[in-house]
Amino acid sequence: MFEARLTNGVTMKQIIESIKDLVKDCNLDCSEEEISIQSMDSAHVSLVAVRLGAGAFDHYRCDRPNALGINTANMSKIFKMLNNDDTVTFKAEDEGDALTLLFEGQKNDTIADFELKLMDIDYEQLGIPDTPYKCSIKMPSREFERIVRDLQVLGDTCTISCGKEGVRFSVTGNIGTGNILTRANASAEKEKDQVIIDMEEPVELNFALRYLNFFTKATSLSDHVMISMSPEVPVVIEYPIQDYGYVKYYLAPKIEEE
Amino acid sequence: MFEARLTNGVTMKQIIESIKDLVKDCNLDCSEEEISIQSMDSAHVSLVAVRLGAGAFDHYRCDRPNALGINTANMSKIFKMLNNDDTVTFKAEDEGDALTLLFEGQKNDTIADFELKLMDIDYEQLGIPDTPYKCSIKMPSREFERIVRDLQVLGDTCTISCGKEGVRFSVTGNIGTGNILTRANASAEKEKDQVIIDMEEPVELNFALRYLNFFTKATSLSDHVMISMSPEVPVVIEYPIQDYGYVKYYLAPKIEEE
Amino acid sequence: MFEARLTNGVTMKQIIESIKDLVKDCNLDCSEEEISIQSMDSAHVSLVAVRLGAGAFDHYRCDRPNALGINTANMSKIFKMLNNDDTVTFKAEDEGDALTLLFEGQKNDTIADFELKLMDIDYEQLGIPDTPYKCSIKMPSREFERIVRDLQVLGDTCTISCGKEGVRFSVTGNIGTGNILTRANASAEKEKDQVIIDMEEPVELNFALRYLNFFTKATSLSDHVMISMSPEVPVVIEYPIQDYGYVKYYLAPKIEEE
Repeated sequence: MFEARLTNGVTMKQIIESIKDLVKDCNLDCSEEEISIQSMDSAHVSLVAVRLGAGAFDHYRCDRPNALGINTANMSKIFKMLNNDDTVTFKAEDEGDALTLLFEGQKNDTIADFELKLMDIDYEQLGIPDTPYKCSIKMPSREFERIVRDLQVLGDTCTISCGKEGVRFSVTGNIGTGNILTRANASAEKEKDQVIIDMEEPVELNFALRYLNFFTKATSLSDHVMISMSPEVPVVIEYPIQDYGYVKYYLAPKIEEE
Repeated sequence: MFEARLTNGVTMKQIIESIKDLVKDCNLDCSEEEISIQSMDSAHVSLVAVRLGAGAFDHYRCDRPNALGINTANMSKIFKMLNNDDTVTFKAEDEGDALTLLFEGQKNDTIADFELKLMDIDYEQLGIPDTPYKCSIKMPSREFERIVRDLQVLGDTCTISCGKEGVRFSVTGNIGTGNILTRANASAEKEKDQVIIDMEEPVELNFALRYLNFFTKATSLSDHVMISMSPEVPVVIEYPIQDYGYVKYYLAPKIEEE
Repeated sequence: MFEARLTNGVTMKQIIESIKDLVKDCNLDCSEEEISIQSMDSAHVSLVAVRLGAGAFDHYRCDRPNALGINTANMSKIFKMLNNDDTVTFKAEDEGDALTLLFEGQKNDTIADFELKLMDIDYEQLGIPDTPYKCSIKMPSREFERIVRDLQVLGDTCTISCGKEGVRFSVTGNIGTGNILTRANASAEKEKDQVIIDMEEPVELNFALRYLNFFTKATSLSDHVMISMSPEVPVVIEYPIQDYGYVKYYLAPKIEEE
């Protein structure tokens, strides 16, 4: 038996929205400690990893590990019906082939329940080593979203260069070149405006803007985003979900052709 | 001579919007007591009946009954130009082939007038018997609109079941099943939040969501909607227009194939 | 060397938006006194003339006249990235083939710079004589925009008739006829609501609504619009930019076929 009740149901809606453009089908892996999702995107270019700890729920019971295979587009359709202040309850039998979702409004006058057919999805979770990175950038998630959206009009590939003074996002295309520099700003009045750079050495990597743009679908989950880079390894773009979990995206850098 | 002046001109705009997706051409039937519209939808599946009593107007004169044949799409284009606080005046000669509309702003600096060509439309109004129903549901129109819109993602047919405790809207489709229960709530603080069920016996009927969705175009006309059902007869979905009239939709239930 | 700094950078964004649907490529003509643009639209039906005086800038330096050939669509893409309170700085070498744009936020944490490739555009500015007009109308730009947008649903050609009491906009089409009368109203409380008519003799001219609609893209530049008409000569639709300049559109009247 798996049963979990999330008062802040909109968090699950935002998680689904943050992965559905990248991932078609995936398992909700339920264990005693957490619900997690791990999946490559359909083109096998990037990897998304989600974690939502049991502590995020006001009721959580998972008798045995259970992989609930869902279609993210269908899940998203169901969650479109969720009001922003609704509570969500998940229910699944251990050997069942359906997931029950219960949406309850705060006024308690309307209750919606949905029974979703589950799928068998064959996916082996990759172990991702928790390596240190040469650069870590914490910046407002809205600003990262805006930069990525804006620079797409100039070209396909974005160079992210991290130095002591800030992060530079650069794109060169047919109509010209654009650079946006976000300055380190650890002392901003509001924590959500802070730009904090933790750097061992400067790093400069190239990424497909198309994927960075997919990742910014998680913006509503968190005021800030963490960007971790080391030379020649995939960047990690992390949107923390309070103290309870995260949505993380991994994307390999493009090798520049000279 | 027909002449009528409606201070709250936006009401007529909302009426046109509430029928234009269902009905292409129809008569505005003007009599001494009221303006009324009755028409089947283009596919002859549902029937729409509108009434706006002379009392809704601050000036109303109709020398003899007059059927003004209009195209709802054209009428809607004209009414798109109406500001929300404009007064509308209708004018038509008894044997004329044009309807004059006058839109006047409150500040009186701008006056717009339109002359619409009328059509001859052959339509005999059906007498609709005012029968009692087994169940009557009064609920917030916005909530009905939301439920109908939401459930469309799951399938085409909605089962409406009315019982003492509330109304259940159910849809079963490829991706699963969804139920939304709206609880009876006669004692809600604000009248517009009330859900009142007046029931002789439980009724459960199936309807095409596509049509229910058309009907919700009348939502802005009224805070609440009245749903009246009896077994095997068409449901009536009524949006009252204050004390002056209504927009009513009639739709036959689907016979379930077993 | 050309260098100019515009604190109110959004003005340049609005200028680009006001011409980009009419004009594909054009020169930014920079001189000691001003930046100006003059161009026929792609179909050679109307003419647009823009002026932004050196006084609009808080820093302005132009060593020698310079024609910077730009593509308005690309320029518009770049200016989409401008925040509403950003400062814009333009930089171009005298014999260079690129224009550098610098966008600086007020908080100074983000700086964006763009290098746009310039084009050679062969265009000889026409001298437009500053003739007096028989009628001059000053009216709120939002109202003119609304009238033009609204009347488009009725037909393609708009008759503008200016008399002492006001301006009448008329359209006749398949579904009927519409007239919108804007009354002279020189004594309106707020200056931006004023309708002022300065008239030597009544004028009535016909124009293509499609072009009038293009011109209303300049609406955000100015609270009011000036319409100047004389019989048989092009109308001038002018959007003043404070005391610093303007966007002016010239359109020849349609000759009515009887």
